[in-house]
Amino acid sequence: MNREEALAIVKPHLKQERYDHTVRVMETAIQLAQTYGVDEEKAEIAAIFHDYAKYRPITEMKRWIESTYLPKDLLHYHHELWHGPVGALLVEREIGLHDKEVLEAIHYHTTGRAHMTPLDKVIFLADYIEPGRKFPGLEEVRKSSWEDLDYGCWMASKNTVSFLMSKSQPIYPETFHAYNALTNKIKA
Amino acid sequence: MNREEALAIVKPHLKQERYDHTVRVMETAIQLAQTYGVDEEKAEIAAIFHDYAKYRPITEMKRWIESTYLPKDLLHYHHELWHGPVGALLVEREIGLHDKEVLEAIHYHTTGRAHMTPLDKVIFLADYIEPGRKFPGLEEVRKSSWEDLDYGCWMASKNTVSFLMSKSQPIYPETFHAYNALTNKIKA
Repeated sequence: MNREEALAIVKPHLKQERYDHTVRVMETAIQLAQTYGVDEEKAEIAAIFHDYAKYRPITEMKRWIESTYLPKDLLHYHHELWHGPVGALLVEREIGLHDKEVLEAIHYHTTGRAHMTPLDKVIFLADYIEPGRKFPGLEEVRKSSWEDLDYGCWMASKNTVSFLMSKSQPIYPETFHAYNALTNKIKA
Repeated sequence: MNREEALAIVKPHLKQERYDHTVRVMETAIQLAQTYGVDEEKAEIAAIFHDYAKYRPITEMKRWIESTYLPKDLLHYHHELWHGPVGALLVEREIGLHDKEVLEAIHYHTTGRAHMTPLDKVIFLADYIEPGRKFPGLEEVRKSSWEDLDYGCWMASKNTVSFLMSKSQPIYPETFHAYNALTNKIKA
């Protein structure tokens, strides 16, 4: 599947603004992949499909989590976290994409996880820093992202934990595991 | 064992400043216990022994963690976190205190844990807010502590996570579980 085919498949699943975001994530992911020697084609396809399930009804995502291998603890956290894991599931089932690395990068693009693959990191970070994003502290993460992939991801995960705490939200375990693992990595 | 006996036992294990801190934690813990209907005698004894292992050599604490039921993942985190669990172990072995609630409050006084008992919370918070402590954000926690035990603990756990992140330190899983569980509790 080439870029145009993939974008044409994903477009009807997204609102225009989310589609535009997806294109920017794709462009950023490819640049990050080039910078850090990650497979560009996998980065491209994972980025294009990363928000595939974003507009599925909450009740449908809940059903997918309840009825499949997806981790049940997701149900105790904000449904904003569900579209990554459900997206990976549906991209495999509905689109027929079976690349494990690509599916995992889609699965963990919002939360991160303990031992992120280079592709995980590229998608996680591209989604965080794409040029359409605007929020406090982002410029610092953007700058780091082009100097050190782990350090960029570490800053993004740290900001995510801080943001959730400032909103009195619980933190999904994978997010916290990502922060810890990246902390140990950048300190090593 | 009465207060004077317990203080006399703990004194030789602590530097003077740590002993003074212990007395302040004891006084604060008793006040919190009175405020929230927690067993005052248990709060007193747990507070007196909470830092029992504070000055054990790191190598000795490491041996206790390696050779007993204590969680091995402690070894991957800062040794500042070891004196609580090791303290609970040694207070049982060396002093012969077998009260499970008291031992658990000693064990978790630095990290907290997912489902803290009222006694856990009293010791965790007394250690955090005792009048000798001084650090940014503490006054707000102190104020909340006398209004709502869960809210006080939640603020303390949130500040602890923020502080560790500001120092680029990993966060022990129990600390993060405490934050999540308290977040869900205060939102309920």
